[in-house]
Amino acid sequence: FNENLSNLGTNIFSVMTSLSLQNKSINLGQGFPDEEGPDEMKRRAGAAVFEHTNQYPPMFGIAEARQAVARHSAAHSGLAVDWQTETLITVGATEALASAFMGILNRGDEVIIFDPQYDAYIPLCIANGGVPKVVKLDPSDWSVPHDQLAAAFNDKTKLILINSPHNPTGKVFSVEDLQFIADLCKQWGAYAVLDEVYEHLVFEGSQHVSLRSLPGMHDRCIRIGSAGKTFSLTAWKVGWVTGPPALISAVASAHQFITFTVPSAMQHAVAYGLDNEATFYRGLGELLHQKRLFLEKQLTDVGFRVLPAQGTYFLVADFRDENDVQFCQRLTIEAGVTAIPVSAFYASKDPPRSLIRFCFCKDDEKLRQACAALKKYF
Amino acid sequence: FNENLSNLGTNIFSVMTSLSLQNKSINLGQGFPDEEGPDEMKRRAGAAVFEHTNQYPPMFGIAEARQAVARHSAAHSGLAVDWQTETLITVGATEALASAFMGILNRGDEVIIFDPQYDAYIPLCIANGGVPKVVKLDPSDWSVPHDQLAAAFNDKTKLILINSPHNPTGKVFSVEDLQFIADLCKQWGAYAVLDEVYEHLVFEGSQHVSLRSLPGMHDRCIRIGSAGKTFSLTAWKVGWVTGPPALISAVASAHQFITFTVPSAMQHAVAYGLDNEATFYRGLGELLHQKRLFLEKQLTDVGFRVLPAQGTYFLVADFRDENDVQFCQRLTIEAGVTAIPVSAFYASKDPPRSLIRFCFCKDDEKLRQACAALKKYF
Ligand SMILES: CSCCC(=O)C(=O)O
Ligand SMILES: CSCCC(=O)C(=O)O
Repeated sequence: FNENLSNLGTNIFSVMTSLSLQNKSINLGQGFPDEEGPDEMKRRAGAAVFEHTNQYPPMFGIAEARQAVARHSAAHSGLAVDWQTETLITVGATEALASAFMGILNRGDEVIIFDPQYDAYIPLCIANGGVPKVVKLDPSDWSVPHDQLAAAFNDKTKLILINSPHNPTGKVFSVEDLQFIADLCKQWGAYAVLDEVYEHLVFEGSQHVSLRSLPGMHDRCIRIGSAGKTFSLTAWKVGWVTGPPALISAVASAHQFITFTVPSAMQHAVAYGLDNEATFYRGLGELLHQKRLFLEKQLTDVGFRVLPAQGTYFLVADFRDENDVQFCQRLTIEAGVTAIPVSAFYASKDPPRSLIRFCFCKDDEKLRQACAALKKYF
Repeated sequence: FNENLSNLGTNIFSVMTSLSLQNKSINLGQGFPDEEGPDEMKRRAGAAVFEHTNQYPPMFGIAEARQAVARHSAAHSGLAVDWQTETLITVGATEALASAFMGILNRGDEVIIFDPQYDAYIPLCIANGGVPKVVKLDPSDWSVPHDQLAAAFNDKTKLILINSPHNPTGKVFSVEDLQFIADLCKQWGAYAVLDEVYEHLVFEGSQHVSLRSLPGMHDRCIRIGSAGKTFSLTAWKVGWVTGPPALISAVASAHQFITFTVPSAMQHAVAYGLDNEATFYRGLGELLHQKRLFLEKQLTDVGFRVLPAQGTYFLVADFRDENDVQFCQRLTIEAGVTAIPVSAFYASKDPPRSLIRFCFCKDDEKLRQACAALKKYF
């Protein structure tokens, strides 16, 4: 069967969640929140199956959802989009990525991706005939290595993938970094896929800027958003893509064959949420910042070095020695706390080996228990 | 952007549905039922968002849904499957197909597909590096051309795709056809992807047999099912795959990156439906048969030749002259009835040009009105 995929094995989130269940450990591995999104959204999803048709919604998404995505884009990011030609609703950000790679790439197109990275990027790139060019963020502070990045661009470069705020590091790309990337895209005629699912999860003092808002980048970027992340409802699997009509058409040309459309009840509820539950998602950054500060202090107390971050619900900590995969297994089995080895987010052959990722969108009691368990263990 | 896809244009179902809306015609084009599935399933979907977690369900699907799929397979098709290793829940049958092609194919693998065919097969095959080998069903009676089929197999053949009951023709593959196909698969070491989404939509006097139930085929086949089709809830986008563990793993290795998982509320309701609403789906075939007999008679009366069929909710009619695409446009605009040109289902260069497809899973009043409009027009 597919050799690129069968060599990968099961994904790290499923592996660590299973190990956590087996060992009844506190699971700070897979990224999903304890505190779920607005009840009124749930009520709307439940009502929608009775109030609306249960037959195929339009391939691009229901009008209400596309209009709400357009309003959300304008209100939150200052990027005006025409809902009829510049929005697409997808089955979560994952399907948005799959459709983007399939819809945009031709065989042999090069795609620049930073390491560390989300585990779906490279398999989707390769499956669709793309050639990944991996550029490593500096593992001491996650800065963008300008020389290496510039060297990775050439006339075969079709895409760069930017995930900001960034999983697993929590990095929010600075305007300077984005300006540098924008110049390279324009110089080489490249496009950008912006995985911005954590756009609302940014800490005080930092700001998320979309590459699409920089001069000359409007027609070169698609932005991917996620209801799962925006409303802490990761089981709903509603995502969206905004961008110029030509790119949205390309993504939709793949979407029509990958899933065709998105469960309409979920679309109705997300449309409502984007328009009416801004208080929820605008408050998420601050809520998460408090949780992060707590976890950071506790981990530092037991001897970890915590790497800097400006957003997301992930924290990367350096424990200085030992193989990260074995260390995560040992922590699960012996300390009762599960994290994810950061090397699992690397495509390059020589990942840093002493970093692990904790997910902290958990209720305060669980975080306290996890820290107590770690304190006891070390 | 992707050249294979951008050459295709918008899919025929969206095109004809738009034209129908513009012209306020009776839409017998896109395949979706007027009479929706069980209310209790809707209630369960609505309740699930409050009764269960709204965070990521397991990548393979929730246990309840996988167990129900296994029971449904055993009860309805006599094919026992182990729910833990031989089932996978997907975002509709469409994502099941996308994940099957991506998870199974290596570059250069050949895939045998019958013409006419569902429009997603070839784009998904090509996007995943497969080489489609198209074999035409005989357009006079949809019989399988044994010689041409045998000639299409060789040592590069990885897969054959069998859609039975078949869209757009309504053909249910006979045991003789399946036996012939099984022998070729075994001879050439090929696997089969069985798109059996219309398994319950079979008319009295006919029987749907799965290729997987034939001797020696158990470990060579995956079967794809659809809640949308089984429960007349096409907006729900829940599908499933059953098959031997090695093939299920391969499909899941792609599924994890294409959608990762399926909205859990829909999974809970479908699990309930498979176990408790058998009366609904077991009755569908007979209900549809009556509708078909009605439409067939009326179309014959106005001068169409209706081709034979044993299942599905599609009927193919021959109007003997004129280009089918133009004819469908004319019928929409001038007669006020929308059908789909059958040439749109052909990958080969020389499709029959006088066939159009009507979808008849519509309420009786709508079917009557459509027939009256056609009678008036001709
Ligand atoms: C798709 S499961 C993984 C969730 C996630 O985004 C993460 O933990 O990084
Ligand atoms: C995915 S929309 C098309 C529905 C369908 O299966 C058909 O009309 O053939």
